[in-house]
Amino acid sequence: MIFSVAVEIRPLEGIANPEGLTIERALPALGFSGVREVRVGKLLRFELEAADEHHARHEVEQMCEHLLANPVIERADIRLEAIGATK
Amino acid sequence: MIFSVAVEIRPLEGIANPEGLTIERALPALGFSGVREVRVGKLLRFELEAADEHHARHEVEQMCEHLLANPVIERADIRLEAIGATK
Repeated sequence: MIFSVAVEIRPLEGIANPEGLTIERALPALGFSGVREVRVGKLLRFELEAADEHHARHEVEQMCEHLLANPVIERADIRLEAIGATK
Repeated sequence: MIFSVAVEIRPLEGIANPEGLTIERALPALGFSGVREVRVGKLLRFELEAADEHHARHEVEQMCEHLLANPVIERADIRLEAIGATK
């Protein structure tokens, strides 16, 4: 099956998030108030071919561990959706 | 009201996406096959205080236009969820 995969990688709570702080400080100068707790992460989207959802999730977890995320400072949340049969 | 906001910023179709290409090329060498169409974007999460959802969405659209995204090469998708009353 083909899966549409989204992996959100974001800084763990308590880990510095300089890009978010910069945005939070810049917004009031541009006239936007009322924004708090800005956190910036990455969102990876891709297609994955796998036998079933269980295998697909396991493979994406392994990818996160080995390449996509740094578990010391980041967490990865995985969303999967079947979008078709294997061609 | 307080809104939990997520803004996904991703490269437009047809715009170079070097980080995604690098990941796509690296995965087979690590033993992962069957991954296609990797695209890497940003996901911003923050809290916003606004009168109602209409105003909240309008303010986030303005933020995207002025600071968060570059409309020439990126698209921004906004998700809003009310999470509480104004303190």
